[in-house]
Amino acid sequence: MIIAVDAAGGEYAPREIVKGAIKAVEEYKVDIALVGRKTILQMLARRHLKKPGLTIIDANQIIEPRESPMKAVRTKPDSSIVVGINLVKDGTASAFVSAGNTGAIMGAALLNLGKIEGIERSAIGGFINITPSAPTFLIDAGANVDCRPEHLVWFAHLGSVYVREILGISSPRVGLLNNGEEETKGSRLIQESYQLLKKTNLNFIGNVEGQDILKKAADVIVTDGFTGNIVLKTIEGMSDNWLYSLAQAGQIFSKAYRLPAQALHRDIGMDSWAKRLDYQEYGGACLLGVNGNVVIAHGRSQAKAIKNAIGLARKMVERGISQIIKEEIYEQTN
Amino acid sequence: MIIAVDAAGGEYAPREIVKGAIKAVEEYKVDIALVGRKTILQMLARRHLKKPGLTIIDANQIIEPRESPMKAVRTKPDSSIVVGINLVKDGTASAFVSAGNTGAIMGAALLNLGKIEGIERSAIGGFINITPSAPTFLIDAGANVDCRPEHLVWFAHLGSVYVREILGISSPRVGLLNNGEEETKGSRLIQESYQLLKKTNLNFIGNVEGQDILKKAADVIVTDGFTGNIVLKTIEGMSDNWLYSLAQAGQIFSKAYRLPAQALHRDIGMDSWAKRLDYQEYGGACLLGVNGNVVIAHGRSQAKAIKNAIGLARKMVERGISQIIKEEIYEQTN
Repeated sequence: MIIAVDAAGGEYAPREIVKGAIKAVEEYKVDIALVGRKTILQMLARRHLKKPGLTIIDANQIIEPRESPMKAVRTKPDSSIVVGINLVKDGTASAFVSAGNTGAIMGAALLNLGKIEGIERSAIGGFINITPSAPTFLIDAGANVDCRPEHLVWFAHLGSVYVREILGISSPRVGLLNNGEEETKGSRLIQESYQLLKKTNLNFIGNVEGQDILKKAADVIVTDGFTGNIVLKTIEGMSDNWLYSLAQAGQIFSKAYRLPAQALHRDIGMDSWAKRLDYQEYGGACLLGVNGNVVIAHGRSQAKAIKNAIGLARKMVERGISQIIKEEIYEQTN
Repeated sequence: MIIAVDAAGGEYAPREIVKGAIKAVEEYKVDIALVGRKTILQMLARRHLKKPGLTIIDANQIIEPRESPMKAVRTKPDSSIVVGINLVKDGTASAFVSAGNTGAIMGAALLNLGKIEGIERSAIGGFINITPSAPTFLIDAGANVDCRPEHLVWFAHLGSVYVREILGISSPRVGLLNNGEEETKGSRLIQESYQLLKKTNLNFIGNVEGQDILKKAADVIVTDGFTGNIVLKTIEGMSDNWLYSLAQAGQIFSKAYRLPAQALHRDIGMDSWAKRLDYQEYGGACLLGVNGNVVIAHGRSQAKAIKNAIGLARKMVERGISQIIKEEIYEQTN
């Protein structure tokens, strides 16, 4: 299995991406194709290029984080994102992982891999992992800011297949993110989506509210991409805030009571909290509904996050996610 | 100053509401009119009725949390919410505080107090208080689930006046909650709102994202009521989760190191964190844009939360919030 990794995308590219890729080769026994400027990547990875598992694919253009996605994809055919997606398209790679411009990753995937037949919109989904061993999958987490009710129904189908295959839950509970529990609550979009979801063969459990996201009230939480993006970033902001306070408090406290340096971390499991809150552990989000496996890592990904994103990509390939979605959507629409 | 308090609304009514009202009388030197079933309230407050400050206004109907708001308001003229709002309408009370059915409070206020002339929609605004001494005001926090761009501009005006008067910030920074920083980001609603906000005389600083909410990136954050409600509840859910983990960890740790029982709380300021995260401290949200001062307390409010909500109501009355909004809206529209 070859996984293509965008070595030019993200705040810490290329150094941390290369590090993460090397870790993934060692830990997961996958083959990685690093996509980026050959000369730089050869220098950064030189000690590892003699061993099997790592190759470099030259791509000389870079799409910047704030570039207009569709224009960038069209005018930069030699960018790491376009080259990486094309490796999936021509069958060289089984998946593509990038921490680069999300819009450009989506744009390149839609243009070059194409949407799965029968699906009107692809979507970004990601696990919210804060309660231990009870991740919730949020979809759409940012791909579609303006949605129609039918789109949310597709998101529910996509998320349901994904969670079933990745977590092994036979019939994932699907909840609709809303501003109240009752069926009559919500914006027009959400009220109409509710009525459509009721008619599907999904395990639709009704509305879930903001405070339920962390309570594992549903396995899949469906929302439009605007709300999904804001919810994810709010959670991220709160986590950052807490981790910072926690670290400071731990220091003050350990000093005051002359405790062993690692006491707080070791004994009350502060490390495991920090781990839960650390988006580097999530492995990134995935783009669902396109012909191919695509993982979108956080723009602030360092080596560990990239390694975990590659781990997620491997799992998607092993489970044949994009093929299964294709088959099930075909059944649904024919 | 008489503040009318709904003694029948909220999960802990009437007992905790009565307790909170008694505390407020003692602490703030305000007069409270408790609205609810006279016989029960007389029993609960009997030791305090001889002293000045507390009166009871009989209201024999109760609007349940899940009742259809407008129907309830129309068919229950003797409910604590309708009676309480009417005390503001006829000038008996200067403000109304309720932890009851939010929709019914809004409905009664719109029907009986009416919207301020020139305003198309009233809105709910609330402080997010997690970063110490740097509260951010979120508006709309749930009143209007479907909005047009002009509505968001009104929310910005309402929030701006409120924050200026309550926090004493001369020109509050207004941010638009969006899924990206750039002007071109967002749903159609948000993109159009951005263009309208640019043309106002407000101190509009552009888009803010989910992770900025806790960073005091803006004094007023404007959003539609659907997104606002979900963001507030997500933050609440995360806070609950953390407070629970924190309390548990503190116990384990104190035992393991045989520390004095209150060590964690006292020495690393866990109490002050807890306080920041505790919605009971917020004092509740306010309904802006109606002819009168209305505070909506959290449905789970206990005595302390009710007392703080009354404190907020007092501040709104002292600053003449509803009158100032009326005058400024008049200037804007004439």
